[in-house]
Amino acid sequence: MIEWKNFDELESYNKLMGLKGKVKLSKVMEGEAGAKRVAEYSVPMSNGLAYNYASKQVDDEVLNALSDLAKEAQLVDKFAALYNGEVINTGEKRLVLHQLTRGQLGDKVTADNVDKREFYVAQQERIAEFANKVHSGEITNAAGEKFTTVVQIGIGGSDLGPRAMYLALENWAKKTGTFKMEAKFISNVDPDDAASVLNSVDVAHSIFILVSKSGTTLETLTNESFVKDALKNAGLDASKHMIAVTSETSPLAKSDDYLAAFYMDDYIGGRFSSTSAVGGAVLSLAFGPEVFASFLNGAAAEDKNATNADIKKNPALLDALIGVYERNVMGYQATAVLPYSQALSRFPAHLQQLDMESNGKSVNRYGAPVSYVTGPVIFGEPGTNGQHSFYQLLHQGTDITPLQFVGFKKSQIETDVTIQGSTSQQKLCANVVAQIMAFACGKDNEDKNKFFAGERPSSIITGEQLTPESLGALLAHFENKVMFQGFVWNINSFDQEGVQLGKVLAQKVLAGDTDGALKAYSDLLGI
Amino acid sequence: MIEWKNFDELESYNKLMGLKGKVKLSKVMEGEAGAKRVAEYSVPMSNGLAYNYASKQVDDEVLNALSDLAKEAQLVDKFAALYNGEVINTGEKRLVLHQLTRGQLGDKVTADNVDKREFYVAQQERIAEFANKVHSGEITNAAGEKFTTVVQIGIGGSDLGPRAMYLALENWAKKTGTFKMEAKFISNVDPDDAASVLNSVDVAHSIFILVSKSGTTLETLTNESFVKDALKNAGLDASKHMIAVTSETSPLAKSDDYLAAFYMDDYIGGRFSSTSAVGGAVLSLAFGPEVFASFLNGAAAEDKNATNADIKKNPALLDALIGVYERNVMGYQATAVLPYSQALSRFPAHLQQLDMESNGKSVNRYGAPVSYVTGPVIFGEPGTNGQHSFYQLLHQGTDITPLQFVGFKKSQIETDVTIQGSTSQQKLCANVVAQIMAFACGKDNEDKNKFFAGERPSSIITGEQLTPESLGALLAHFENKVMFQGFVWNINSFDQEGVQLGKVLAQKVLAGDTDGALKAYSDLLGI
Repeated sequence: MIEWKNFDELESYNKLMGLKGKVKLSKVMEGEAGAKRVAEYSVPMSNGLAYNYASKQVDDEVLNALSDLAKEAQLVDKFAALYNGEVINTGEKRLVLHQLTRGQLGDKVTADNVDKREFYVAQQERIAEFANKVHSGEITNAAGEKFTTVVQIGIGGSDLGPRAMYLALENWAKKTGTFKMEAKFISNVDPDDAASVLNSVDVAHSIFILVSKSGTTLETLTNESFVKDALKNAGLDASKHMIAVTSETSPLAKSDDYLAAFYMDDYIGGRFSSTSAVGGAVLSLAFGPEVFASFLNGAAAEDKNATNADIKKNPALLDALIGVYERNVMGYQATAVLPYSQALSRFPAHLQQLDMESNGKSVNRYGAPVSYVTGPVIFGEPGTNGQHSFYQLLHQGTDITPLQFVGFKKSQIETDVTIQGSTSQQKLCANVVAQIMAFACGKDNEDKNKFFAGERPSSIITGEQLTPESLGALLAHFENKVMFQGFVWNINSFDQEGVQLGKVLAQKVLAGDTDGALKAYSDLLGI
Repeated sequence: MIEWKNFDELESYNKLMGLKGKVKLSKVMEGEAGAKRVAEYSVPMSNGLAYNYASKQVDDEVLNALSDLAKEAQLVDKFAALYNGEVINTGEKRLVLHQLTRGQLGDKVTADNVDKREFYVAQQERIAEFANKVHSGEITNAAGEKFTTVVQIGIGGSDLGPRAMYLALENWAKKTGTFKMEAKFISNVDPDDAASVLNSVDVAHSIFILVSKSGTTLETLTNESFVKDALKNAGLDASKHMIAVTSETSPLAKSDDYLAAFYMDDYIGGRFSSTSAVGGAVLSLAFGPEVFASFLNGAAAEDKNATNADIKKNPALLDALIGVYERNVMGYQATAVLPYSQALSRFPAHLQQLDMESNGKSVNRYGAPVSYVTGPVIFGEPGTNGQHSFYQLLHQGTDITPLQFVGFKKSQIETDVTIQGSTSQQKLCANVVAQIMAFACGKDNEDKNKFFAGERPSSIITGEQLTPESLGALLAHFENKVMFQGFVWNINSFDQEGVQLGKVLAQKVLAGDTDGALKAYSDLLGI
């Protein structure tokens, strides 16, 4: 029997609060004991990845308390309830089924009178068939010429995740010969976004994907008009250049305005939709359906790991619990995501949405205010670039920010140069390793300007290479981490009521229905 | 006589601390009083910009206390000392002269036996002459063909600022017919960065700018080798395709490896170098020297505003002081930068470096630890994209994050569509206005899941259009804001000792000089 209790109603809450500041990193990471810790504080993941938490401020006692918390809060049981089809999204009274897009973890889940796993697989197959026809030239533009570019029109989860995944695999696909078409993205309602993307593509050879679950997202419909205008101005029939990804009940479904429509549903939130048709259409067109299938397999393998009740065998769960310790016990407010991989340049922006939109809540799943802090601020840029930018504050600033590193042994393109006795890839890896130790242990110096206090906790996910499989695993890891943290905080990680008020007020401004400060601000911007 | 005192040694410190939480935004922003506040809490800037702080948690009493702080801490006097050539960068014992690249604010500054204003102007003129020759076809590749692409090789300040400025003006330049050449950037030591940029350009028609003040930045020299290999593999003479931006004393100066070298010096920190040759070469090649000159004029006008002792006539100073109030009195840890302009997509990343690398310090300018918090975490993405991503946490999260909006009346490309009675630009502006009010005033709701507490402070910088002049003004505003905050905190905003330890340890790893945890981590990544 699952009980949904607030975090501070649990026994393990008080126990954990008593363990604040217990571990001194510069002490535990010293000498051979430190080496042993690096070897032992590691959880194998799928697809060659591993989660290493040696430089986190935990020890056996803290880990035991976190394990007790996982049990008392029934975290893996709650995950099981989720994938077995319970109504976990209490606010919107919906199931939460994004894991089903990549595998069947538990019972068959029936909703809307269909087996949802079969439904998602069917959409993936329809997309694969469509993409193969585009690649083979069976589906072409009106002149019978092949499409060369795919442009996704979507915002938020219909943009950040798919864009981050595309950028993560673009060079890999080019290197491995699986690259099919260039992808571009239009998201912002700023007219310069659509105009500049449209100026940069050959519209006659472009296929556009309109992505909106409801079919009513204002930014997306506005940008669709932009695209339709551009196609019309080029003397082209827009309906021969556009497909839709939407829900079956949306106005976009079964419309003659689109070459085809592929379906998602209300059980998949935008920020969790990269493995659904939202990511599937653009990634299958860009790289082929096999690459997308490999990406899903990577995610499925990591979902499986997330079902393990042992926190030392469940990397997402452990990562989540350590994050809770840092947030609620240590009191840290932000977390930096720092991938040492240029291909992951927009992965932090995706995680920023995933985490902050899911867990930036002040009420529990029943709508009652909670009296502890929930989701942190998430930010990040790839290393080594970040080292020459904001790392100064991370090393010597007055607040401590926990860090989440990611690093791979091999580059994707595998073109490299040797300078001063090492390759670029070796330099990249040497830097991330060096940073972890610098953050953990610091360095004394009589000149306090050159003094490093250390005690800055970090974890690292290591891997062989960023491939479709390891990318899928990485994505699922963070999705599951965010989910587990939401369970600990007893919040609903699957709605986003916080975006509504701004929408309502923007409509008022556009309708001229303003007074007071809202009118005064509108005047400032000439609307 | 200037005195450098710690913030908490000032009388105004205690007075400010007593003013915590004095202003309730939902109250002061209500009704016609709110409208009046929007009209009055505004400081005109140059080039059509204005800084509006109506939705900040300040009132006349707080503003008076901030004004007293400005006087007691001698903030504009310290700025005057800086631009008159005093050694403000105490750690490295250097002058701080980036403002001189765009104008002479005070006395002549002589260093290294030259008038530094003349020196910077001379570099700008040499760059202009070079760029004009490239554009006219007087300087070409070996085959006598025009260069079509410029690629900047640099990291940190040699990358983020110039890249953000290029993206900010690319569409404007295309629209106004001033666009000359596409620019690309190679920064990361990840070999996939250089390899993928090189795969995307026609090296035979590309001119490369190597940017490194010291001429020894490992990432940049490594990437130069990448480029030289690519040129060699294409049968080209690298020295006919490369220029350098460096200091006169660096190994890159006066080398036959480069077509030309343009100079910066130790008095301009990387993160403040966009208006020096570091930004000048790439922006002059991309858009022409006149556009770069306009950009400098915009910055110069805003520098002039920053000399005003009246906080209500000095937008950068007021912005800085309100930020200090938020950081030290209200206790907020992060600040989000939210430009409603897709062209400013990388402006937040630049400000992240500018702010966090300058003010992420724990010791004062004499190396003594400070007992108050200094620079905040900075992050941000363009609106409206952010609204569909992390705004959930900003609206309903458990911590408050102050917000810095930017918005323009007109788009840059001025191609637009009307949907549901409004243009995209109107929708964009309506959204930023709506967000400010939603954050400030919130909204009650019996369903606490839909409840907005409000009291989230924000400011907005508004403008007519993002042009070279207004971009320059915007950049200088934030540079000066960061400088003033550093003065309040009595820290040295112009060094970055926090980046050194990681570099030293990375060299150890590459040399195989490791043991303990450092060796164990190195093993994880196969180095």
